[in-house]
Amino acid sequence: MNVDGQPYRTIWLEEPGCVRIIDQTRLPHEFALLDLRIPDEMAAAIGNMKLRGAGLIGCAAAWGLYLSAWQHHRRPGFSSLWQADYAALLATRPTARNLQWALERVQLALDSSPGADPVEITRREAQAITDEDADFCRRMGQHGLRLLRDIAERKPGQPVQVLTHCNAGWLAFVDHGTALAPVYAAHDAGLPVHVWVDETRPRNQGAALTAWELGQHGVPHTLIPDNTGGHLMQHGLVDIVFVGADRVTATGDVANKIGTYLKALAAHDNGVPFYAILPSSTLDWSLTDGIQQIPIEQRNAAEVTHLQGWDETVNRPAIVRICPANTPAANYGFDVTPARLITGLITERGMAPATAEGLRALYPERHAVN
Amino acid sequence: MNVDGQPYRTIWLEEPGCVRIIDQTRLPHEFALLDLRIPDEMAAAIGNMKLRGAGLIGCAAAWGLYLSAWQHHRRPGFSSLWQADYAALLATRPTARNLQWALERVQLALDSSPGADPVEITRREAQAITDEDADFCRRMGQHGLRLLRDIAERKPGQPVQVLTHCNAGWLAFVDHGTALAPVYAAHDAGLPVHVWVDETRPRNQGAALTAWELGQHGVPHTLIPDNTGGHLMQHGLVDIVFVGADRVTATGDVANKIGTYLKALAAHDNGVPFYAILPSSTLDWSLTDGIQQIPIEQRNAAEVTHLQGWDETVNRPAIVRICPANTPAANYGFDVTPARLITGLITERGMAPATAEGLRALYPERHAVN
Repeated sequence: MNVDGQPYRTIWLEEPGCVRIIDQTRLPHEFALLDLRIPDEMAAAIGNMKLRGAGLIGCAAAWGLYLSAWQHHRRPGFSSLWQADYAALLATRPTARNLQWALERVQLALDSSPGADPVEITRREAQAITDEDADFCRRMGQHGLRLLRDIAERKPGQPVQVLTHCNAGWLAFVDHGTALAPVYAAHDAGLPVHVWVDETRPRNQGAALTAWELGQHGVPHTLIPDNTGGHLMQHGLVDIVFVGADRVTATGDVANKIGTYLKALAAHDNGVPFYAILPSSTLDWSLTDGIQQIPIEQRNAAEVTHLQGWDETVNRPAIVRICPANTPAANYGFDVTPARLITGLITERGMAPATAEGLRALYPERHAVN
Repeated sequence: MNVDGQPYRTIWLEEPGCVRIIDQTRLPHEFALLDLRIPDEMAAAIGNMKLRGAGLIGCAAAWGLYLSAWQHHRRPGFSSLWQADYAALLATRPTARNLQWALERVQLALDSSPGADPVEITRREAQAITDEDADFCRRMGQHGLRLLRDIAERKPGQPVQVLTHCNAGWLAFVDHGTALAPVYAAHDAGLPVHVWVDETRPRNQGAALTAWELGQHGVPHTLIPDNTGGHLMQHGLVDIVFVGADRVTATGDVANKIGTYLKALAAHDNGVPFYAILPSSTLDWSLTDGIQQIPIEQRNAAEVTHLQGWDETVNRPAIVRICPANTPAANYGFDVTPARLITGLITERGMAPATAEGLRALYPERHAVN
């Protein structure tokens, strides 16, 4: 999507041996690009969250293997250098499913073409993964756009009001995003749309990333504290809720950023449709009860007690403590929204009810499950 | 309650002509007392939120009139000086019901004793309002304590887990508070209790005030982002929810800090009892539909886009921006929790279901209403 009027992706091959990314740790206050030439630099960028988001992490890992081939393929011991880079990339975010999936896919491509140039093989596979991520997101956007068009027809002349939580926009993928893909599709098609952006404590991905990317692309939006959505829905100010997902069970339970469940409850209580939008790689066909079976990551308490922002008086980033020193804090990263509260799931293949039957109908090749 | 092991109230007459308060704008990072000797100083302290909270504002206004009498009662034109101070105090927080109520009460006391010493009359009335506030809160604590004892009996050896939103502790009143009064009563009675403290964006009264006052009094607690409560309830980690209230309809709908409704939904969805605790002065007998009838204050967007905390690198307060410059933000101060989601209301008279019948039974003198 656009930054300062120019179309961007979150990651691309700038020139042979050089992958360029947007440094997301400096957003929204500074827009900076970062060139990565060494596999270790890519592993560090993933680990330090200079790039993050389910889809983007997978692509970045694939490009990390391309850099490994670029650096090492003419050296003696290429195989063991490659294995070390593979292990380092895999270890960066051990719970990220897409990362492992992408690494395995590049490895398979290499293994399937013995004797071929590893630089060319890995470049082609990383680019394919990247393009597929963008294409899947674009498709999810088209599926979701139908919902927004239906709402727009019922309220001509007024913007469709979307509420979203966290960042499931293009910054979390290669382009378009998931939850925001229908929003961009609508905006680009001239459909008036406005987004209520949950700030998404504690890491504030909504305030820092979602507000930034919507602003850069010119989509009208309003930042709100996470506490606000229920009040807005009670007063008819939200037409639809779109969120992403970190893991979805075969029965349609959705693990997503902490606080998603509270918005789903409010949507259900007020008759507001609530959709989770995700590529099929997010579906975990082995699980049937999200609340019982999906482990919830607990993160550093300092993310709750301290907060990073921009100190305008000195024009630089600053970290402030918001509570007494030594206050104990808990930091659960995700929660699980039970399928009964979800109007539907949107994947690259289309829409499905959040049920085992609905998901099986969309993915009939999985029909043996459960 | 205790600060550094010493019992404190939020406001008291330090010596004739001098009212002392805790400067709440410097909490939790600095504990500072402030002496107020001039009625204008009291009006400024209320307006600048050096003290805040429904109960405390009323008491402060009453003490402001005492200072007016102290300053002016021997001067010619006392009556018009008094009227000017009265008007200035009333104008500080125009929507606060307790403030007007307290001013009227002091005025009535003065009018009822013509010829008496106005300093003595106003001192006595302000002290009575202050003591009554503390006594009402203490009583609410005793009523709520019964609920905590019942829970404690069902889980011997384990702490009772209370979740609260915003600050309805002793800092919002003279002593004890409302939502936290049963917690202090339990703790002081040796009942093990632990409080999940919602940080309460955007002004973070939970992180700044509730965490501070619980810590000072030695009550175990854990700070959480507002997004977290639903997840905790899904996993059985919350036994009961206690919140305060800013206005309650005759039918039991509760206006309270924004986000309260989301916690009530989660409590209802998980079978967790949810109580609002409030003095009878918070009941608005003229209203029957909170969502339609209670106006919701919209505050400055800068409270959402910017956040105050303590910069530990330079050891002073700092304000940081958490989103792109010029991001639009909305800041609704309160929401309304419908009575159907509320297990009960606790007032100084005891417990009632959140229904018109329940409230009328507690306040039979109001039985003509509705």
